[in-house]
Amino acid sequence: MAKKIAVLLSGCGVYDGSEIYETVLTLLRLDQSGAEYQCIAPNDAMMHVINHMTGEEMPESRNILVEAARLARGNIIDLADAKAEEYDGLILPGGFGAAKNLCDFAVKGTEMSIRQDVIDFVRSFHKAMKPVGLMCIAPVMVPQIFGEKSICTIGTDPDVASAVTAMGGEHQDRSVDDICVDAVNKVVTTPAYMLASGIFDASKGIFALVDEVLSMIKKYN
Amino acid sequence: MAKKIAVLLSGCGVYDGSEIYETVLTLLRLDQSGAEYQCIAPNDAMMHVINHMTGEEMPESRNILVEAARLARGNIIDLADAKAEEYDGLILPGGFGAAKNLCDFAVKGTEMSIRQDVIDFVRSFHKAMKPVGLMCIAPVMVPQIFGEKSICTIGTDPDVASAVTAMGGEHQDRSVDDICVDAVNKVVTTPAYMLASGIFDASKGIFALVDEVLSMIKKYN
Repeated sequence: MAKKIAVLLSGCGVYDGSEIYETVLTLLRLDQSGAEYQCIAPNDAMMHVINHMTGEEMPESRNILVEAARLARGNIIDLADAKAEEYDGLILPGGFGAAKNLCDFAVKGTEMSIRQDVIDFVRSFHKAMKPVGLMCIAPVMVPQIFGEKSICTIGTDPDVASAVTAMGGEHQDRSVDDICVDAVNKVVTTPAYMLASGIFDASKGIFALVDEVLSMIKKYN
Repeated sequence: MAKKIAVLLSGCGVYDGSEIYETVLTLLRLDQSGAEYQCIAPNDAMMHVINHMTGEEMPESRNILVEAARLARGNIIDLADAKAEEYDGLILPGGFGAAKNLCDFAVKGTEMSIRQDVIDFVRSFHKAMKPVGLMCIAPVMVPQIFGEKSICTIGTDPDVASAVTAMGGEHQDRSVDDICVDAVNKVVTTPAYMLASGIFDASKGIFALVDEVLSMIKKYN
């Protein structure tokens, strides 16, 4: 039976939602590998809407789930209805949405908190010893979710790396084509657009992350 | 010097803009091949905004260029400012945006008209004998732009194929992993999500289209 991966999204667009290329490359690699996937997102208002031409905030409100549905061609479910037991693993693409809509790292730094439904959903995978992959800025959530000394990478940015350490995690520098594996917690992370110079560049680490997540399922199930 | 391809977008999301996977797979293949690209879109209101969860129209207005900027990570220019002479070829991804925002095929069928700025931009490539690739529903614009007997595919849908013929084009059936080449007009088309069962499936014809467009540049420049 095909492995089935949950992909947790936070909108559609790098500055206020899920990074589009990271998400599509994740889905491409899963499909290429014969794995199935289900996109999922919280049904709630986005922190704000950013005009991706100007970088300015737009005077309107959009819903995380409804916008993420664009990235899923409509095939998406509300996080409130998602059951971790139906999936073999979980992947969280990056983009500012991960740091604005899933947690508030973008505005609160190390004082951030993570949505309770996101904590609960990710921990369900952890408790069942199912692998979780996070890319780009999403790994800032690793220490609060997986606990002290959990290991991850956000690339090489010293400020964000220090924030991970300050929140109790262990940060390891990685290049864009590499992944960081916390074998104890079954957490796989990669820098993606924290470092990528282009989409091909980004694809290397993202494909490696997907491969490692799928490989962990094969090994331990 | 790297070949540079213009990618003409129509929004961000399959039901009212550019199909996201088709666009990202195009950009990935261009980058993998060492080609450069520039995303471009008309600076105008979208025909309408579709909720991608429900398929219903939303009571709001969005701008084609501003929404397409999400797909380009902000690196996009207004079609009004784009100069065909700066590019070696042009690719138009599909999605309903191609049939709603670039032309009005989605509502008018064979009575459709194409935005004049889109006609002018694409014809500038044609006049310079530079290749143009179109995927999914976008090839319905081929007959009006490239003239009688221009050859294209939209896959195998009999109604859309008949519409292409009725507008003066020559339609050829193709499978999702194949391309249709009009060597005289240097037009390359592929069905993409007119037929694709998934993103890996879609990638086959899209990668072949990009490869053929780049190969035509190498051959004729």
